[in-house]
Parts: sequence; structure tokens; C-alpha cells
Amino acid sequence: VGLRTRFTELAGIPHPIALAPMGDVAGGLLAAAVSDAGGLGLVGGGRGDPDWVDRELTAATASTDRPWGVGFQAWSTPPEVVERALAHRPDWVMLSFGDPRALAGVVAAAGVRLIVQVTDRDEALQAVDVGADVIVAQGTEAGGHSGRRSTFPFVPTVVDLVTPIPVLAAGGIADGRGVAAALALGADGVLVGSRFLASSEALATGDELEAVVSGRGEDTERSRVFDIARDVPWPSRYPARTMRNSFLERWRGRDDELRADDVARATYQDALAAGNRELAPVWASEAIDLITDVRPAADVLHALVAEAETSIARVADAVD
Amino acid sequence: VGLRTRFTELAGIPHPIALAPMGDVAGGLLAAAVSDAGGLGLVGGGRGDPDWVDRELTAATASTDRPWGVGFQAWSTPPEVVERALAHRPDWVMLSFGDPRALAGVVAAAGVRLIVQVTDRDEALQAVDVGADVIVAQGTEAGGHSGRRSTFPFVPTVVDLVTPIPVLAAGGIADGRGVAAALALGADGVLVGSRFLASSEALATGDELEAVVSGRGEDTERSRVFDIARDVPWPSRYPARTMRNSFLERWRGRDDELRADDVARATYQDALAAGNRELAPVWASEAIDLITDVRPAADVLHALVAEAETSIARVADAVD
Repeated sequence: VGLRTRFTELAGIPHPIALAPMGDVAGGLLAAAVSDAGGLGLVGGGRGDPDWVDRELTAATASTDRPWGVGFQAWSTPPEVVERALAHRPDWVMLSFGDPRALAGVVAAAGVRLIVQVTDRDEALQAVDVGADVIVAQGTEAGGHSGRRSTFPFVPTVVDLVTPIPVLAAGGIADGRGVAAALALGADGVLVGSRFLASSEALATGDELEAVVSGRGEDTERSRVFDIARDVPWPSRYPARTMRNSFLERWRGRDDELRADDVARATYQDALAAGNRELAPVWASEAIDLITDVRPAADVLHALVAEAETSIARVADAVD
Repeated sequence: VGLRTRFTELAGIPHPIALAPMGDVAGGLLAAAVSDAGGLGLVGGGRGDPDWVDRELTAATASTDRPWGVGFQAWSTPPEVVERALAHRPDWVMLSFGDPRALAGVVAAAGVRLIVQVTDRDEALQAVDVGADVIVAQGTEAGGHSGRRSTFPFVPTVVDLVTPIPVLAAGGIADGRGVAAALALGADGVLVGSRFLASSEALATGDELEAVVSGRGEDTERSRVFDIARDVPWPSRYPARTMRNSFLERWRGRDDELRADDVARATYQDALAAGNRELAPVWASEAIDLITDVRPAADVLHALVAEAETSIARVADAVD
């Protein structure tokens, strides 16, 4: 059994479910586990560290013979790092956040398939222009960084803009009902982050697992506070969804003030360096209400598919 | 044909689509048109004006023999207004925004069925406590006021909390793909606002129609600016989604300052009273990308159902 869409046909995989290339979390073993189970595993190369890329892509290639890929942040990744990744022969490269043109050229020159993640209409049209083979429409429900559109209305809007390019829905998808809903909205598949973070193969911290398994969507919030405090120059149009903590409560709505306060930022960075977990950002999806356990990634993927099929059968049954 | 769910069974209607009781917009003729077409028409009694209630509910009862209802804002509506509405013998009363307990008692005493709209988990549990027959899970994609959760992850979260009470999804649903997706997420139906605002029977202004038909989701934004400027004491946890305009650009993020600036607020209110349309709030859903025409409400409803069935058939076809 499986869910066959234009994306699964294009990718040559049984299930229309891709692993979000979560920075620091989606390593080679997790990506390989998702690919081996019939999804598309994408290693998170986002932070752009060449040693991480070499290590995790080596792990991926050693662990699966199925299609797999790697994802990068377009705004921060030098072309050399993408070239280094391409030497590991991924089947797919995904680019997110920022102008994808320069890196898309590198990927195209290597003859590797390109996924571009978009967060608004202009980015969707730009993804078409750069020749994306697949476009991810990402909503603000996602854990970590995102743009300004919500998954539910954004997915069909992107589908209408970019057809016939297959679209994956991302942001807030954590169970099979969400997979079925994404397909109903016109997507050809989904990109799933936090649900795979809570899997045995993820490089997740205990705090992250605790947040995703026990937390509620209402405990998450989007802000720029942690990027500003860490002096990470994320483009301002991409805030990040994290669990709420005392640092966020203190600095909410005071971006300019924090940016100007060298002492506050240095103190924060020192606290992180000293291992202060209470203040550290914990990235998590708004959909964490739906995640209550940590399982092997293959089990997660098979449950997503089985639940999606149950949901689809239930909905089909509603048609009179 | 139709879509049969526990909601349609309970309501005795063919289609699981309810009209959002939009204040000033969802009058008796629109509600009657939706009910006559097989949905559930809900008159917008939100502003609590007894004359409006009498006039529009008289129009509704004169125009349809099918089940219909009326919706009120819980935080602002006196029990006498609900009692006045009950004298018109609606089949349903819907309560939104704020503690529903006092008004729920009035509705229960009349033996009329109760819909409670909720915007977070606590409100969902409270809706169960007050004996809601149907619960609407509303996301921040909605036009006008809403809470803090997004439709896509919030709907299944509410379903898990309140089962077996039927749940309607609201916020960002403007075409049949959205109806199908809502059912996939576990809802038993949908509540639709902006798509019905762009219908012949709506009491919509030209500016509202223009915004909904030509605007894009990215032109909308949630804020408290217009409530503060108008001195309308909406509870702070419910900002409102409107089209962006110069007044919002000017006052964004300056709620406290606007609240303290008597001159600015008086000037704004004078401008509205003088008919300044450029500054007036225009409420609209994030899903307006999907709305491109004004049609009779019956056509809107039948298109939603037909598109939903097409979407469901396409998704069912994906199952291998």
C-alpha cells in the first residue's frame, strides 16, 4: 500500500512524505531511515558547516540505497558547501529562505533535482523561475523559521500559481490526518519536521524531545528574539517558532532594543555557551499537540501513511 | 449528491457547510439563501443591536423553511438580545469570543441547539462544559477577529479534545479543497465567512467586495489597531484580520500609544463618521487569494460541495 502522487512518481518513492531538513536535527541516519521506509529523507545542511555536511552525508550514503537529499538555507550557504554536498551524490537538493538563484545554478549544473521552499506568492513565482522540480509551500505553523502565510490557505494558493510543478505542504503537519488534508488542498505530498524530530534516529536534545512530546501548540510562539540575541543575521522576514521561555517573555516586542543592547546579547550568549538550557531556544511546530511519543522514524512514517489512508477512507465515505 | 457527516445528520441538512455569522454582513437574506441551498445559514447578530436582530431574523424566517440560526459575540451581547432572537425561533444559536456560560444557559432554557466557537484548547474544554452541540475550531486565518491557533493544526487538536461532539473548521476555508481538507483533519463540516461575503445576498460594501475578490492573503494582517482606534473594547486576546491600510501601517505595534492618544482616536472616529473609506477597517480572510468572483450564495455553496467532491475523489485515487 501507499499514496501515489505526482511527487512519488517523480521521486520514485512509495510515500509522498519528505523529511524536513532540520538544522542540527536531521542527520544522515534520520534521513536514511526515512528514505529506507519509503519517504524522502533530507539531511539538514542548513547551518552550512562543511564538516557536518561531510559527516552526515557520508552517514546517509552508507545507510540507504533509496533516493535521499540535503537541504540548505539559501541566505547563508556558500556555493562551495553545496558543491561539497553534491560530491556525495544526493538525488535532491532543497533550498529554503532567501533568494535561491545562485545555489539553484550550482544544483542544476550538477544535474540534481531541486526542491525550493517558499513562504509567499512572490517566492513561489521565483521558484518556478529558477526551475524547481518540486515546490514546498511552508506555513507559519512550522517549527523554526517561516514566513507569513498559514498552511491551510497558502497551499492551494501556491498550487494554483505553480501547477503543474508538484507542491509539498509544510508547517503544522504531524499526523496522517494532516497528510490527507494536504493532499485534499491540492498538494502532492508533505514535508514533516517536528513529528520526525520525535524519532529515535533524530539528533534531538532531551529538551527538544520533551517539548515536542509534552508541549502544546499554545506554548509555541513566533519571534525574532533568539536570532537577534544570538547575533544570527536571519533575514527579518523569517521569524522563528520556538517554545516560549523566560527570555522570550522578557524581550517580546523589543527587537530594536535587544539589537542595541550589547550587554544583554553578550550575557545571553554567555549563558548559552555555559549550557543554560532554560534560556536556549527550542524550535517546535504548532502541531506538537498531536505528537505524544518518540518512535523509530520508520514507524512514524508508516503511521502517517496508515492514518492518512484511514482519514481518506472516512472522508470518501462522506460522499453521498 | 452531498457530503454526509455527523453534523449534517444532527442538523438535518444536506451539506456540512455553515455560514459564518459575520456582523453587519450576514443578514437574514444571506442566511436564508445558504439554508435554502442546503447549508446552515447563521445570521450575524454579533453587534447586539436589537433592531438589527428583529429585522434580519424576520427576513430569515420569511425567506426559508429550512434550519437556520443566529450568532452572537459572547463578550458583548446582553442576554435580552439573545432572548429577543430566540423569539424568532431559530434552530441554532452560535456563541463566539469570550465566556459563553451566561448566554449558553439562555439558549439551553429555550431548548435551542448551541454552537460554540473556540480559539484555543481551554475554550474547547469550556465549550464541552457548557453543553455545546457543535464546536467550531477557528483559526487565525479567519477574517475579522480570531484567537491564536492556526486552522491546520488546531482542528485535529480540538477534535481529539471534544470527540464525540461534532467539530466545524473555520478560518481560511474558501473553496472546496478546503472543505475536503477540513473533513480530512477530522472535522464534520466547515464554517465559511469571506467566500459568502462575496455573494449576491451579503450586506457587503463595495470596498469589502473589492478586497475579497481582488486582494491577496498577504495584503491582510492581524492587529488590534482598529478596535483600539474605534474605542471598541474587544478582549485583547482576539485581534482582527483586516486588509492593510495607511492607518494600520502608521499604528502597527503601537497599541498602548494609540490607546493613550485621545486626539488620534477622535480624529480617526471623525474620519470614519465622515465616510473616509481609505482608513476604515475592511475585514477579510487570509484565503482571499482563492476568491475571484461574486455569485449567488446558492452557487457558492454548490461550488464548494462540487469542488470538495472532486478533491475527495482525487485524493481517494492516490491510495494505491
